[in-house]
Amino acid sequence: MKTPVTVLGLGAMGSALARAFQAAGHPTTVWNRTPGRAPELEGVTRAATALEAVNASPLVVVCLLVDATVRSTLNGLDLTGRAVVNLTNGTPAQARDTAAWATAAGAEYLDGGIMAVPAMIGGPAAFIFYSGSPVAFERHQADLAAMARPAYVGSDPGLAALHDIALLSAMYGMFGGAQHALALTGSEKISPIRFTEDFLLPWLTAMLSSLPRIAKDLEEGPEPGAAGSNLAMQAAAYDNLLDTSVGQGVDPALLTPMGDLLRKAVAAGHGDEDLAAVVGLLRTGS
Amino acid sequence: MKTPVTVLGLGAMGSALARAFQAAGHPTTVWNRTPGRAPELEGVTRAATALEAVNASPLVVVCLLVDATVRSTLNGLDLTGRAVVNLTNGTPAQARDTAAWATAAGAEYLDGGIMAVPAMIGGPAAFIFYSGSPVAFERHQADLAAMARPAYVGSDPGLAALHDIALLSAMYGMFGGAQHALALTGSEKISPIRFTEDFLLPWLTAMLSSLPRIAKDLEEGPEPGAAGSNLAMQAAAYDNLLDTSVGQGVDPALLTPMGDLLRKAVAAGHGDEDLAAVVGLLRTGS
Ligand SMILES: NC(=O)c1ccc[n+]([C@@H]2O[C@H](COP(=O)([O-])OP(=O)(O)OC[C@H]3O[C@@H](n4cnc5c(N)ncnc54)[C@H](OP(=O)(O)O)[C@@H]3O)[C@@H](O)[C@H]2O)c1
Ligand SMILES: NC(=O)c1ccc[n+]([C@@H]2O[C@H](COP(=O)([O-])OP(=O)(O)OC[C@H]3O[C@@H](n4cnc5c(N)ncnc54)[C@H](OP(=O)(O)O)[C@@H]3O)[C@@H](O)[C@H]2O)c1
Repeated sequence: MKTPVTVLGLGAMGSALARAFQAAGHPTTVWNRTPGRAPELEGVTRAATALEAVNASPLVVVCLLVDATVRSTLNGLDLTGRAVVNLTNGTPAQARDTAAWATAAGAEYLDGGIMAVPAMIGGPAAFIFYSGSPVAFERHQADLAAMARPAYVGSDPGLAALHDIALLSAMYGMFGGAQHALALTGSEKISPIRFTEDFLLPWLTAMLSSLPRIAKDLEEGPEPGAAGSNLAMQAAAYDNLLDTSVGQGVDPALLTPMGDLLRKAVAAGHGDEDLAAVVGLLRTGS
Repeated sequence: MKTPVTVLGLGAMGSALARAFQAAGHPTTVWNRTPGRAPELEGVTRAATALEAVNASPLVVVCLLVDATVRSTLNGLDLTGRAVVNLTNGTPAQARDTAAWATAAGAEYLDGGIMAVPAMIGGPAAFIFYSGSPVAFERHQADLAAMARPAYVGSDPGLAALHDIALLSAMYGMFGGAQHALALTGSEKISPIRFTEDFLLPWLTAMLSSLPRIAKDLEEGPEPGAAGSNLAMQAAAYDNLLDTSVGQGVDPALLTPMGDLLRKAVAAGHGDEDLAAVVGLLRTGS
């Protein structure tokens, strides 16, 4: 028999996780604060309380709104001998605190960061960062793979959240840029669907291929004289982005900080370098 | 014989454009303010003055730093009967002004936005937006294709710049997000090359596939109840991004405006919707 699994939380994400376990043949017990959520879930056992749900399985997956919710939900429960896998979004500091707290309550604790939207769970592009108890990860790696490809990034429980938050930062940057682009083209009644298919997606896909070079510059230092797009030129062109937003009646708020950084980089003498030079300026105090 | 072409400006981009024309068999004349730039360019004619360069070809491609530079360079020259294709980055308003000015000087004017870095010129992923004189575009479309795939977006000369600036906004959002991600992981000494290859690139590639749905929501209105990632949840998780930055000693400046927008969207009653709801909030006055 496959490992019995409990899922706490039946929001959009928790219900997708429960469905994936159930579909993979795990006896699956679920609980949600508000009863009656995810009525479409079939073949699962619905527990009346979090206590009952936790007691049903050696592997307990938690996917609630925020960290404080996890604490209040598990508070007072005996977790001895169970693997608690917390996939609720949180900070590295919260993960370390919750790990200490859950370990004191008897659990083997894994913190996780889900890199997927619910529709991707169980599919090939989804992955989940894990950090914390190596024992729990070894024991349940194959079980966890029912949700998404597991990527274990270290025994420090904060590391999964760090990786997760880094990727979410990158995602919101990309979405924010795309939203600004759609607001600009919308100001001239250009079709969002056509613009996205014909130009936005191919362009961002092509530009993604610059990231390995930025990473290489960061790790090994910039190649002298190799900047195909020098920061002085970029800072000059960036003024056109800001002016165009204002001219088209679009709030430049999402663009402003990058313009400040480009100007700061040029003023600090990086005008003939490439975008990697900006990363160092983000360190506080630099 | 292929159409003779003149390229004004031999910066990183202008020299890539000249090389592409030369390689495609166009008699190519070049000029640059500072002599001796791009010494590696072979098989081109180097003109001593902008006047001499302009007089050499019916098709004149201009790629200088900013719009004001274009005006000062072409000032006083008779452009009668020539197609002037200005690929210098600028705003829609600048493009319209420069179009009127160049037309008064006798030119058929096309404004353009290059969607490529110099290394991509002549390759399959590069494209260039054009707007302005349909006559000049018809006549020279095949010539212009030597640089990159031409995408004509209308006779209003400002439209190429609008499309260009929109895509650059999206690109800087994406790069800014990636830079923040690399600053965060750098704070724990994680290898930029490994993080980018293993996680950042696959993740952003997967998330790009959400853009068509955002565009569809924008064009046709959101599907009720379909939000797999509701904005209330996203706003709650976003606080973890800001807290993590501060905790890791990384300036949250690039992240702040999106957090403000998510909170504003929830406060305006869009908490159960998806990211498309943010686009409307970018319109000034909303
Ligand atoms: N959806 C995504 O795209 C996505 C992607 C990656 C990670 N995540 C993370 O996954 C977690 C869940 O997200 P979701 O999309 O499932 O959110 P959601 O649809 O808004 O569901 C929120 C869940 O949290 C529960 N909850 C909230 N406050 C609670 C409390 N005080 N006590 C007990 N339960 C409480 C809710 O229960 P009730 O039904 O009783 O309100 C519900 O089960 C979040 O941390 C999110 O950041 C989501
Ligand atoms: N590189 C890219 O990735 C890229 C991509 C898309 C679009 N673009 C756009 O292409 C244009 C050129 O960029 P680039 O990368 O080639 O920049 P660059 O390498 O910095 O070259 C700038 C060019 O502008 C000339 N210039 C500057 N001020 C001038 C003035 N007052 N009078 C005459 N010429 C002047 C320079 O001549 P000197 O040698 O005499 O200084 C040089 O030829 C910019 O508008 C840029 O936004 C660039």
